[in-house]
Amino acid sequence: MNDKKDNPVLLTDLYELTMMQGYYLCHKNVPVVFDMFFRRTPFNGGYAVFAGLEPLVNSILNFRFTDDHLGYLDTLGLFKPEFLKYLSKFRFTGDLYSVEEGELVFPNEPLVRVHSGIIEAQLLESILLNITNYQTLVATKTARIREAAKGRRIIEFGLRRAQGPDGAMSASRAAFIGGAEATSNVMAAKTFNIPPKGTMAHSWVMSFESESDAFENFARLYPENTILLVDTYSTLKSGIPAAIKVFRKLKHRGIKNFGIRLDSGDLEYISKQARAMLDSANLREAKIVVSNELDEYTIEQLINKKSPIDSFGVGTNLVTAKGDSALTGVYKLVARKPGKRFVPCIKVSDNPGKTTNPGVKNVLRIYGRDKFMLADLIFLEKEKTAITGKSRAKSTMALFHPDYTYKSVRVSGYGRTRALLRNVVRGGKINYEFPSLPGIQSKTLSNLKTLHPTYKRLLNPHVYKVSITKNLQNMKFSMINKWKA
Amino acid sequence: MNDKKDNPVLLTDLYELTMMQGYYLCHKNVPVVFDMFFRRTPFNGGYAVFAGLEPLVNSILNFRFTDDHLGYLDTLGLFKPEFLKYLSKFRFTGDLYSVEEGELVFPNEPLVRVHSGIIEAQLLESILLNITNYQTLVATKTARIREAAKGRRIIEFGLRRAQGPDGAMSASRAAFIGGAEATSNVMAAKTFNIPPKGTMAHSWVMSFESESDAFENFARLYPENTILLVDTYSTLKSGIPAAIKVFRKLKHRGIKNFGIRLDSGDLEYISKQARAMLDSANLREAKIVVSNELDEYTIEQLINKKSPIDSFGVGTNLVTAKGDSALTGVYKLVARKPGKRFVPCIKVSDNPGKTTNPGVKNVLRIYGRDKFMLADLIFLEKEKTAITGKSRAKSTMALFHPDYTYKSVRVSGYGRTRALLRNVVRGGKINYEFPSLPGIQSKTLSNLKTLHPTYKRLLNPHVYKVSITKNLQNMKFSMINKWKA
Repeated sequence: MNDKKDNPVLLTDLYELTMMQGYYLCHKNVPVVFDMFFRRTPFNGGYAVFAGLEPLVNSILNFRFTDDHLGYLDTLGLFKPEFLKYLSKFRFTGDLYSVEEGELVFPNEPLVRVHSGIIEAQLLESILLNITNYQTLVATKTARIREAAKGRRIIEFGLRRAQGPDGAMSASRAAFIGGAEATSNVMAAKTFNIPPKGTMAHSWVMSFESESDAFENFARLYPENTILLVDTYSTLKSGIPAAIKVFRKLKHRGIKNFGIRLDSGDLEYISKQARAMLDSANLREAKIVVSNELDEYTIEQLINKKSPIDSFGVGTNLVTAKGDSALTGVYKLVARKPGKRFVPCIKVSDNPGKTTNPGVKNVLRIYGRDKFMLADLIFLEKEKTAITGKSRAKSTMALFHPDYTYKSVRVSGYGRTRALLRNVVRGGKINYEFPSLPGIQSKTLSNLKTLHPTYKRLLNPHVYKVSITKNLQNMKFSMINKWKA
Repeated sequence: MNDKKDNPVLLTDLYELTMMQGYYLCHKNVPVVFDMFFRRTPFNGGYAVFAGLEPLVNSILNFRFTDDHLGYLDTLGLFKPEFLKYLSKFRFTGDLYSVEEGELVFPNEPLVRVHSGIIEAQLLESILLNITNYQTLVATKTARIREAAKGRRIIEFGLRRAQGPDGAMSASRAAFIGGAEATSNVMAAKTFNIPPKGTMAHSWVMSFESESDAFENFARLYPENTILLVDTYSTLKSGIPAAIKVFRKLKHRGIKNFGIRLDSGDLEYISKQARAMLDSANLREAKIVVSNELDEYTIEQLINKKSPIDSFGVGTNLVTAKGDSALTGVYKLVARKPGKRFVPCIKVSDNPGKTTNPGVKNVLRIYGRDKFMLADLIFLEKEKTAITGKSRAKSTMALFHPDYTYKSVRVSGYGRTRALLRNVVRGGKINYEFPSLPGIQSKTLSNLKTLHPTYKRLLNPHVYKVSITKNLQNMKFSMINKWKA
């Protein structure tokens, strides 16, 4: 069994372990609740797509400290034998609540909520942030790219520019959740059951005496999927003319799935020239695939300029999430139970946006009658019955701004509502049926249809309303005032 | 055995496998030479630090197609039984030449050179780029950060913002090569024998009734390494005063290794205030560690403003290589042997900078008499004896510009020279003693001392001269002319 993938228990920051020992020795395993959330939508965009839950749960339920791990920790001279003995029996025995993968999520909403003893909850921090930050970031980036492509296909090509082998695997999974149709990464395709796709490299063309030779041999081998890379020497003068000869033969044989890939030059100009050359050769069915440092901005511009492109291969800028290369998700203590009941915890900051929302919370998504999402309301779990039980057609709901106490709105006559956080792990056991990856992708795409297009603009999107209930507001500001006094 | 880490044979782009089958069926396993190089220095900087060789070699020498892999490939309907049978016996049996890890490298220089049959060489592409692109990028970023810190310590804190578990592992390894002193990532510390370091999180402070309680308990547990996070509530009003009380007790007991961590606010202002408060409490030995979205630019400015900071914890912007989140290394065919001898190959582009340097090449590093690096010269391996055998004190060397034929310089009276590419794998077997990771870090640091400070400026650095020999220039331009004709 591979230490890191299947049981990544040591994939943690050292301070988690020293704090765990501190909790163990100072005040035992007090029950606590931690929230994972992010403070800012990546890419200055209007939404994020949550991803990473299934690999996260698989990782934490496999946490075991082996003798090898304990031996190493012992060499650091930081840990007492009684604590190492505790670790030798360590299991995650708590509960985990989470929004589902493929859900649209917004700043300051709890996305994952952990209930357990503080020693266990602390150990989850590093891996939880590592997995959900990156997968959410890439799923979000892919959704933006897919929206910009307005229905053209997106293929993820990022393996060679990802952060090592596992960076590439995580990227392929998250890109599929965000709406990519396929990946070039064969291991990701096999592991996650994603369609693998590919064309050819310049080395194929250069390994033959001529471009025509290279193309003819390729078409003979792969007649059902002949996508020819036409820019090794000169796209318009030699590449496309050579490809046209090959396509005519294929067409003569009744084969239809062929086309070209453009990987350099001005993609608007060259795709239009290429389309004209293919059309005048009576090859209207020939597809045009493009690649080369694409992102949502370049793709939106190509589409706006009516570039005749059928598919986009996106690599570097997708897997490195160009423009915002990390989601700055955090994991904060929101409640603890030192005695008989939970008391809320708050982290106060001079910057109001960094002051946390205390208490055990969930998120209500409120839809309008037009089926579009209207607003989200962060509520305390103890309000759940009252909040979710409202007869909505008749009632109104009060939404308060998380930071400005004087800002609030009342909504009435709204459509359906639903709570986003679900129980996924109970008492250290899975209590949730993980959807298939295509199932998650479908969820992303149908969720995106409920988000009004104004929230999807690349530049200055409409800001989606995330509000808190009156009770949560009262709790938060009385804690701030108490702390100040 | 874990499929992906120990034998990442399927961690490849699909087109590599379809091309391999094509080579197998069309023209067998013709001997070829591929070069890995990059075209642009990352971060608009003056240099890069090469990293990733040892994990790369370990990966490719473990390449095996298992029955499970072959069964999956068979389901794709793309591969013929005879090719799958070939794969079942696949081993890398070729040679690999490389610059060493920790070497300073520049655009267009061959960094890794693969000699083998084309089928094998093609399969190396994706994994070679995946590993060397990312590790070189992070080693380079870390070296820039370390130079900016002018001798203060750099600790890598990137686990929670890396691209999944392996992104974090690769980042920690490469950051150490680039000059980080420690990592927070315990698994990376264990795997690569890097010192692990850590302080405490806000949750530690919030889990106690008061900040003082939290600090006192921590100091009692870790008296030898008491670094207190002082910004949970108010750094100047409550955090530092509470820390000072604890430090006085420690000092009284003769303990010296204590200090504070600042993770928010204006780091110049707060570090100066903190230093003054600590000093007036007669705690001059107390250290100040800072973190919070640091990069080389912020650190340079803090140092220029004489901020009294002892160590920098750098996470997100290091592991995501802010400013250039991918090194755009490529892998290009430079020679093939269709008959009795190798013939050079070239990829011509309308953009002169994208036209490749043909042939089997090495790089000569030429030092001045002052011990600083003077220039690099890319030469053909067949020129090696002539180039490296020169009696340098007396001779002159002609350096030609790679793109502009009319640009050249003659250098004379230079100091030592050395060829950068060494044989690392011969006939599929390791022919090189991999240095220890601390050994590689020392190499990076001593190499950086031979690079004149003008090349290390963050803004508009001096451009290091990478030139080619007359013979290589003649070969390149005669091939371009022949292709145009």
